[in-house]
Amino acid sequence: MDFAYDATTEELRGRLLRFMDEHVHPAEAVAHEQLAGAADEWTRPPVLAELKAEARRQGLWNLFLPDAEHGAGLTNLQYAPLAEITGRSPQLAPEALNCAAPDTGNMEVLAMFGTERQKQRWLRPLLEGEIRSAFCMTEPEVASSDATNIATSIRRDGDSYVINGRKWWSTGAMDPNCAVFIVMGKTDPDADRHRQQSMVLVPRDTPGVTVRRGMRVFGYTDGSHGGHAEVVFDDVRVPADNLVAGEGEGFAIAQARLGPGRIHHCMRLIGTAERALELMCRRANERVAFGRPIAHQGVVQEWIAESRVRIEQARLLVLKTAWLMDTVGNKGAHTEIQAIKIATPLMAEWVLDKAIQVHGAGGVSQDFPLAQLWASARTLRLADGPDEVHRMSLAKRELKRHRA
Amino acid sequence: MDFAYDATTEELRGRLLRFMDEHVHPAEAVAHEQLAGAADEWTRPPVLAELKAEARRQGLWNLFLPDAEHGAGLTNLQYAPLAEITGRSPQLAPEALNCAAPDTGNMEVLAMFGTERQKQRWLRPLLEGEIRSAFCMTEPEVASSDATNIATSIRRDGDSYVINGRKWWSTGAMDPNCAVFIVMGKTDPDADRHRQQSMVLVPRDTPGVTVRRGMRVFGYTDGSHGGHAEVVFDDVRVPADNLVAGEGEGFAIAQARLGPGRIHHCMRLIGTAERALELMCRRANERVAFGRPIAHQGVVQEWIAESRVRIEQARLLVLKTAWLMDTVGNKGAHTEIQAIKIATPLMAEWVLDKAIQVHGAGGVSQDFPLAQLWASARTLRLADGPDEVHRMSLAKRELKRHRA
Amino acid sequence: MDFAYDATTEELRGRLLRFMDEHVHPAEAVAHEQLAGAADEWTRPPVLAELKAEARRQGLWNLFLPDAEHGAGLTNLQYAPLAEITGRSPQLAPEALNCAAPDTGNMEVLAMFGTERQKQRWLRPLLEGEIRSAFCMTEPEVASSDATNIATSIRRDGDSYVINGRKWWSTGAMDPNCAVFIVMGKTDPDADRHRQQSMVLVPRDTPGVTVRRGMRVFGYTDGSHGGHAEVVFDDVRVPADNLVAGEGEGFAIAQARLGPGRIHHCMRLIGTAERALELMCRRANERVAFGRPIAHQGVVQEWIAESRVRIEQARLLVLKTAWLMDTVGNKGAHTEIQAIKIATPLMAEWVLDKAIQVHGAGGVSQDFPLAQLWASARTLRLADGPDEVHRMSLAKRELKRHRA
Amino acid sequence: MDFAYDATTEELRGRLLRFMDEHVHPAEAVAHEQLAGAADEWTRPPVLAELKAEARRQGLWNLFLPDAEHGAGLTNLQYAPLAEITGRSPQLAPEALNCAAPDTGNMEVLAMFGTERQKQRWLRPLLEGEIRSAFCMTEPEVASSDATNIATSIRRDGDSYVINGRKWWSTGAMDPNCAVFIVMGKTDPDADRHRQQSMVLVPRDTPGVTVRRGMRVFGYTDGSHGGHAEVVFDDVRVPADNLVAGEGEGFAIAQARLGPGRIHHCMRLIGTAERALELMCRRANERVAFGRPIAHQGVVQEWIAESRVRIEQARLLVLKTAWLMDTVGNKGAHTEIQAIKIATPLMAEWVLDKAIQVHGAGGVSQDFPLAQLWASARTLRLADGPDEVHRMSLAKRELKRHRA
Repeated sequence: MDFAYDATTEELRGRLLRFMDEHVHPAEAVAHEQLAGAADEWTRPPVLAELKAEARRQGLWNLFLPDAEHGAGLTNLQYAPLAEITGRSPQLAPEALNCAAPDTGNMEVLAMFGTERQKQRWLRPLLEGEIRSAFCMTEPEVASSDATNIATSIRRDGDSYVINGRKWWSTGAMDPNCAVFIVMGKTDPDADRHRQQSMVLVPRDTPGVTVRRGMRVFGYTDGSHGGHAEVVFDDVRVPADNLVAGEGEGFAIAQARLGPGRIHHCMRLIGTAERALELMCRRANERVAFGRPIAHQGVVQEWIAESRVRIEQARLLVLKTAWLMDTVGNKGAHTEIQAIKIATPLMAEWVLDKAIQVHGAGGVSQDFPLAQLWASARTLRLADGPDEVHRMSLAKRELKRHRA
Repeated sequence: MDFAYDATTEELRGRLLRFMDEHVHPAEAVAHEQLAGAADEWTRPPVLAELKAEARRQGLWNLFLPDAEHGAGLTNLQYAPLAEITGRSPQLAPEALNCAAPDTGNMEVLAMFGTERQKQRWLRPLLEGEIRSAFCMTEPEVASSDATNIATSIRRDGDSYVINGRKWWSTGAMDPNCAVFIVMGKTDPDADRHRQQSMVLVPRDTPGVTVRRGMRVFGYTDGSHGGHAEVVFDDVRVPADNLVAGEGEGFAIAQARLGPGRIHHCMRLIGTAERALELMCRRANERVAFGRPIAHQGVVQEWIAESRVRIEQARLLVLKTAWLMDTVGNKGAHTEIQAIKIATPLMAEWVLDKAIQVHGAGGVSQDFPLAQLWASARTLRLADGPDEVHRMSLAKRELKRHRA
Repeated sequence: MDFAYDATTEELRGRLLRFMDEHVHPAEAVAHEQLAGAADEWTRPPVLAELKAEARRQGLWNLFLPDAEHGAGLTNLQYAPLAEITGRSPQLAPEALNCAAPDTGNMEVLAMFGTERQKQRWLRPLLEGEIRSAFCMTEPEVASSDATNIATSIRRDGDSYVINGRKWWSTGAMDPNCAVFIVMGKTDPDADRHRQQSMVLVPRDTPGVTVRRGMRVFGYTDGSHGGHAEVVFDDVRVPADNLVAGEGEGFAIAQARLGPGRIHHCMRLIGTAERALELMCRRANERVAFGRPIAHQGVVQEWIAESRVRIEQARLLVLKTAWLMDTVGNKGAHTEIQAIKIATPLMAEWVLDKAIQVHGAGGVSQDFPLAQLWASARTLRLADGPDEVHRMSLAKRELKRHRA
Repeated sequence: MDFAYDATTEELRGRLLRFMDEHVHPAEAVAHEQLAGAADEWTRPPVLAELKAEARRQGLWNLFLPDAEHGAGLTNLQYAPLAEITGRSPQLAPEALNCAAPDTGNMEVLAMFGTERQKQRWLRPLLEGEIRSAFCMTEPEVASSDATNIATSIRRDGDSYVINGRKWWSTGAMDPNCAVFIVMGKTDPDADRHRQQSMVLVPRDTPGVTVRRGMRVFGYTDGSHGGHAEVVFDDVRVPADNLVAGEGEGFAIAQARLGPGRIHHCMRLIGTAERALELMCRRANERVAFGRPIAHQGVVQEWIAESRVRIEQARLLVLKTAWLMDTVGNKGAHTEIQAIKIATPLMAEWVLDKAIQVHGAGGVSQDFPLAQLWASARTLRLADGPDEVHRMSLAKRELKRHRA
């Protein structure tokens, strides 16, 4: 047992921290102004292009992808502390490093399951950061926590698939630069429960695709993820070789995609919580009320101590989960993936809430990043399955171990 | 001791509930669409004008004002259950009844402290619902929890007062219909600590007044309160008889204004929590996951029971506080006013959080009112003094009672 | 709506508060020493006899019994604030006033359902405070939250009933002065689910009755309730006219007994919480750490404020529940009885936990009443049905109201 | 970074787990009965002697002592998972392995600071498990969280030291086998704040030593720690060479003693929480209410999942703290030692509370170990400094890092 990062990680951490200090943090105010003045609230701030170019130049690019052919070839345990650092500025840093959801998951799917043609057409420009992509799974009419009852149909018709259905929370689809959707639907409603679903690639400009509107997240667009769209598919026809892997593989691909997706979110949330704690401490040191800095108030001190205690615990569990994914695989790490999915958003939400409180009314406004970060953390208690579903599933395995 | 509402209250509750069912709730979707399509996000939805006309026709107007000359002449205890009902639709109902903050507090100030000229010019159109108003107290540079260190200056110069300073969270100032600001500043920085401040009426179109921008509340505009603006006062000159009461009375007026303001917020939050609980139950009954309505899930049932238990307790404390204000005055009800200011937003926030969770991703979006209501409840843990300041003050009085 | 106590209540409160100050609180240390030196840990401290005589002399006797023939004839709403006061010293005061469980519930049962002979033989000496009694319902083998699956049999045999079974948590049975048990069992296992059970009076010295041992409550005996015994009934034969009401009435009697029993516990817990808050404040004022009284620490102030806020809310809900029981009956108050049963023990437990923390290590010891009071409050989250069962039941009614 | 235990640890874990299964767990019921029937409630159950002999025979002895000359020579990181296992049966296992507080801390003190004579006379029999010892620091009159204001005097008089003072919570002193006390007092009240204190060895039978009484912990004796006594020192004279290290070293020794002491408690609490979770799962699987095992209830599942999530996080932080103590020393691990001292008792208390709730009334009684384990966990929120003091201290260091 050893709690030190390895040399590769330490070296990359050093470079990434410098990149954050020299480029990302200074760009935050710039991006804020660019967005405030933008005609289209879904556009990404122009400063991001500069950040992406610089990150690529510095070799801080596609770090998320364990596949050394297409990505950086890091283990999950090596990537985790880097993702954490990007979580300190989640509106800019993940995208700057080409490590933003939903593209990361989509690239993983294409790298693992894509045909050569699909890789050439979609994976390559995604890896280059030229386009963005969307993931279309959730549907308004059915509980998103139970993936088997998806209603969208993907019907084979000659050399094509024809797609009909309505999706929402299609992450990425509001980005003007989004070029392709990965769409989950049913190819065979009569097959086994987990063999009915397939995934198909749909270019955004395919006739019959209507991006209806962006879903708000507590009033925010969540632009760094390319927003979350309601999308209607009305007799949308794509070539049959747009199918990802085979028919009936949709559920398995979704599962393969979710593990890394969940841990990436948790990694970043650790960094977000660290950022919140830092802002909380700074504000507490600077702000004076009733004649002394509010850092002297016992209640504020309690929040700070408790934040540190909670962050440390959550980080270790995230790191151990990464280690398990590396050593025994995603299935072997199932319990821990669920555990961090339950624990980390709640932890980050708690720390952010206290940081907001220390900032007074400013804390809920656009003048600090806290309210927006809170909205993201809160939303992650629902995204990729609500806490309650994860707790129920985790508990059932625990109970099974103690059955007579 | 008697826990039944009196006859006047029951009669008004019946009428108001009918008004909500027949007019307000049906208008919610209309207002939502009108706002979504509005060129200016600070405009109020046109349907409000209809609601106001109808409420006035039905005698459901200015219920908040205990002063029978100008308002409905209800006691706090009579008004509380009515304000609660308006809290079920807080984006529309309070304004429809001309009972929305910050106008309510401003009308109280004018009714209590205004000169005849001031009443004629400002109170009358406010009571008629023709204009709206703003309250400008908080400043960005100083802790808002400590009102004595306000920096804005109000300097006497001949027959005028000249105002210089910067405010933010000036509630009401973003409403296009806002015509007048009540501005708190210092007329005499050398006077006693609570005698330095004065309040002055500033027409919005006075030269030197710049409404810089609207502060966001978790991404929302908080339009039903007329938004919260950053306002700069640069050598703003108003006639000397725009002063409210006398020089040095600012702190006392602010205190007089806060008590009712706080309880009104709490009354409405009870109704908001009831609405959330109702939506939570409906959704739980309708939504099916893993083969049965989620109403069957033990965790959801626990949230529902706990919501009911918390709402009942908070409501009773709000009602008792109203009764104390009526019987022993605002000062005598000081502890209870602080207690409800601490307890009610936290309670409403908790219930809303659970209602959101039951609604899945939809809960954080614009498709349900929950996320926006949550943002309001959360903000009330800071508005009118953060929880921590109220707790500290309440504790000190409690400790004093037990000093040897 | 009126939050003032009526004149009868105020007069009795005044007298009872004086009795507490003059007799009960001074007797606490005496009782503590008497118990510490007692040969039998289940004996009641001799000072109690003096307190009982004095309370009776002052007319502070059997206040709990609404039945004016046998008791004080107070409404629940009148009794609630008095029970609260006794909860400030729950080891002595309730028993001193002949208002201690389980005798209160047993006296209610006898007053409501007993025959003249039963009243003469058992109710009279209980009302006189000459004997104590036990209530035997819970069984070790079945979930106590589901009363219908009781296994003890009560079989008719000629002019007798013969009882066989094993009980635990038979409250009252460890008191050396306990003379009679009310035993719940099944007379007809084939009857309808709620008509199988009956209650029968069993003199403690009946052959076949074995009081095996006292159950501990976090290491305490809970002597003020007469302890909680494991009792074995082995062919115990009693005259047939020891049956309470008719065969098959057991479940209905148990239900009738539970409502008042639950609210009495809650009333007293309010007083217990007040006592804890008072001790917390005193200690905080007196104890110096790091150069200043710990009353100056923000965290301690937060606990004190939060305690006040929680106590006030719980008290009002208990009072409203009492009012409902008086005005619409126990059934009409069902939701509220469950609500206070959920809310009050949790509240008291929380306040006591903080009071303990303020007292340092002393808080968990026998030198302060806090740890023992905590154990009682904690146990009440299980007694008379665990919180979870009440929440589930309350939620189901709430959900029903919102079913389409 | 590597989350696997090393080979030494794995081997010892295997042996210790077998020892628990074959010897300790079967002895639990035996010890329970022996204690229930014991004339003196402070006697240790005879079965312990057998367990100690067996543990020693198997080489599972003095594992806590990093010093290879006297102990097992394990690192903190190697000992942590073993201490965790003993925490599954904390009334027996730590003592069986000669790894119980306060002897562990006292042995460390003697091994590090004792003279040869002191080691020969006291350390040897302690290492052999022949005697037990007590640690006398806390005093009733002063806040135990602030060690500098101890009042007991240790006055040099010729070849002796003369001790006068009153202690309480002198852990270990109630064990009939306790032979020696380590007493903290002031040798020089005029020295620097942290140089006034010294420690001295006092044989228990020294004239002038009076063990007045055992402090209760929620009604329990806490016999496995040798109880906690109130002790009076009245002109107690011991030879001058009973001084530990030099005059003025008392504070430093106390600090050196506390770090390992705190982490040992936390390690064992992880095991206690695991035991509670196991009992909770078993009970939930077996107990039927309302027609199905309570394991099917969503609320119970939530507790189980949440327990697992919390235990995993706390364990990792304890392990990382052990690793830091090994690699950068106790001072370098200061923040983490505080963090686990804050987090672990709260976590264990929470898990135990839920396990109790699942066990119904039985959970608070002597029929399950849960209530007693809860009392220990709760007490550890006060022992060795209350949570609040640790949080305050931790927060101040965090705030310092972010000072401009």
